[in-house]
Amino acid sequence: MSNEPKIIVIGASGIVGNELISILLEHGIAPERICATASASSAGKATHVGGTAFTLQLTDQSLFNDRDLVFQCATNAAALEWAPIAIQHGATVIDCSSAYRMDPEVPLVIPSVNLDAIANHTLIASPNCTTIVLLTAIHRLTQELDVGSIQCATYQALSGAGREGLDALERESAGESPSSNSIFPEPCAFNVFCHESTVDSETGFNGEESKVIQEVHKITSTNFDVIPTCMRVPVKRVHTEAITITLKSETTQTHVLNCLEQTLNVVVLNEEGHFPTAIKATSGDTVLVGHVRVTNRAVSLVACGDQIRIGAALNAFRIAEAIEHNALADCTSVTD
Amino acid sequence: MSNEPKIIVIGASGIVGNELISILLEHGIAPERICATASASSAGKATHVGGTAFTLQLTDQSLFNDRDLVFQCATNAAALEWAPIAIQHGATVIDCSSAYRMDPEVPLVIPSVNLDAIANHTLIASPNCTTIVLLTAIHRLTQELDVGSIQCATYQALSGAGREGLDALERESAGESPSSNSIFPEPCAFNVFCHESTVDSETGFNGEESKVIQEVHKITSTNFDVIPTCMRVPVKRVHTEAITITLKSETTQTHVLNCLEQTLNVVVLNEEGHFPTAIKATSGDTVLVGHVRVTNRAVSLVACGDQIRIGAALNAFRIAEAIEHNALADCTSVTD
Repeated sequence: MSNEPKIIVIGASGIVGNELISILLEHGIAPERICATASASSAGKATHVGGTAFTLQLTDQSLFNDRDLVFQCATNAAALEWAPIAIQHGATVIDCSSAYRMDPEVPLVIPSVNLDAIANHTLIASPNCTTIVLLTAIHRLTQELDVGSIQCATYQALSGAGREGLDALERESAGESPSSNSIFPEPCAFNVFCHESTVDSETGFNGEESKVIQEVHKITSTNFDVIPTCMRVPVKRVHTEAITITLKSETTQTHVLNCLEQTLNVVVLNEEGHFPTAIKATSGDTVLVGHVRVTNRAVSLVACGDQIRIGAALNAFRIAEAIEHNALADCTSVTD
Repeated sequence: MSNEPKIIVIGASGIVGNELISILLEHGIAPERICATASASSAGKATHVGGTAFTLQLTDQSLFNDRDLVFQCATNAAALEWAPIAIQHGATVIDCSSAYRMDPEVPLVIPSVNLDAIANHTLIASPNCTTIVLLTAIHRLTQELDVGSIQCATYQALSGAGREGLDALERESAGESPSSNSIFPEPCAFNVFCHESTVDSETGFNGEESKVIQEVHKITSTNFDVIPTCMRVPVKRVHTEAITITLKSETTQTHVLNCLEQTLNVVVLNEEGHFPTAIKATSGDTVLVGHVRVTNRAVSLVACGDQIRIGAALNAFRIAEAIEHNALADCTSVTD
């Protein structure tokens, strides 16, 4: 085993971990540099990414070395267990779970929105997928406009609940009854239902909605009224969001479209018959934005982003690119 | 042929016409009283409702007699052609198309909302399905609260585009490619896309959204800012709507829930894990409302209503009940 820094992907057999390895390979990282890990139940098995098989190693402190880059794509419990150990061994950790997102010591980062927050941190949290799609689409608008409040109704893919969610959709769409131990509280084929996360008895918001509210405030350092309604729809990948920004003073369609055109990682599709759709955004590296309407005191639009990719794995990778550009470049050249 | 008033259903082989006949039968109307009509392409064929076959008659002026009740469940062109002729022959017409909705001489009616508008009119328009679900859910709230604006993101069933829409969903969900002459501009299985109606180049709103804005203003005699975003989702029946009402002064969760509990044709499902879903609302006579959240200056909720039934055929039937209670009662007793 080389002593050069590794890229460790914890939770590599999960839907986000798998996508992350795929992104690493697309960016020319040699498979030998990637250490795919899993918990005891999966360790020893192989996970396949494209044509490459990765044997899943048991996540263990002996894996972590100085200058390693660790992507945590597992549960909150695993994140809380391994992040301190990895950092103690000199590694840098990018965590895709929600364990550290609201920790005031940990920056919560979408590189196109708040890159500066990374500074010299060795633990960086990647936001919830719904937050990433939302803020990627509108963060520049919120800087340019006189924002009153932000409403966002989501149309969330069932793969947002992991492989089990996707499997449930495929089985139920083929006519099977919902499993008695389904991760969803409702049948998922041909249905629309509220996000399955726990509802806060005080506010009435479900867990997904609460995350969006808190994360938007933390990332943007604002205190806008954010009112999300998070729903599941029978879609395999991609979260679609119907967003309305109410304004304290008027704006124009031209100004709004100019802002969107200049927003990093956004592609504007605002021609009738060519609006963003879940299928068009599948596996994309950008958020598609369109169906823009500017009324008296509001801007409305539709945004679609692949929640596994730009909403999770790719955001984590972009954080890594920002903090470890040189290290990644080193890894890339190892195979030369 | 009896000289007693008939119930004529124009467009009886369509998805709304068929549902309307089903509702008539459920309410004890004898099949003999029902005259199912269609255009030349379908006339002579049979349409089946439950176990009863109705031979489709060609829509023709000779069908209409004094005191007949005519439900128009066909195209705008058919509505504009037959309504004047039916009225001339002494019939009362309830039109489910959009042909007369914004005609200032024609009342646009949801009986639970603006029953009084019917007065002595002989032509009454039934609103767009999205409008009916929205206003059934919130009209009482809008009277009780100090409303600033209404935002509504929809999750609309593909059967809203008629039988063709439902067929497309079933074929594409089974793996077929979208037909080259699909009524939808996008693949419809496992997808989310903007409503297929024409976009107004000035406002950016699609036709469905423009209808909702105009119809809400007409029915409620208000001028609230109404901002709909109308989207299609891979659902067979039922329009789900994520609604946010911004307020000019605060309210409480208790007040909002009390209002909703007292709203006619609304069933409140506000317990976690038992929120409204598209499947729960399928074939229902009520709008299911839940996931209610009250923040500083806004009320948010989710509403689900079967757009074919409460959003179209049942609304038309309820209009008929209101204006012709006695006539319908007469028809019911004919079989005694």
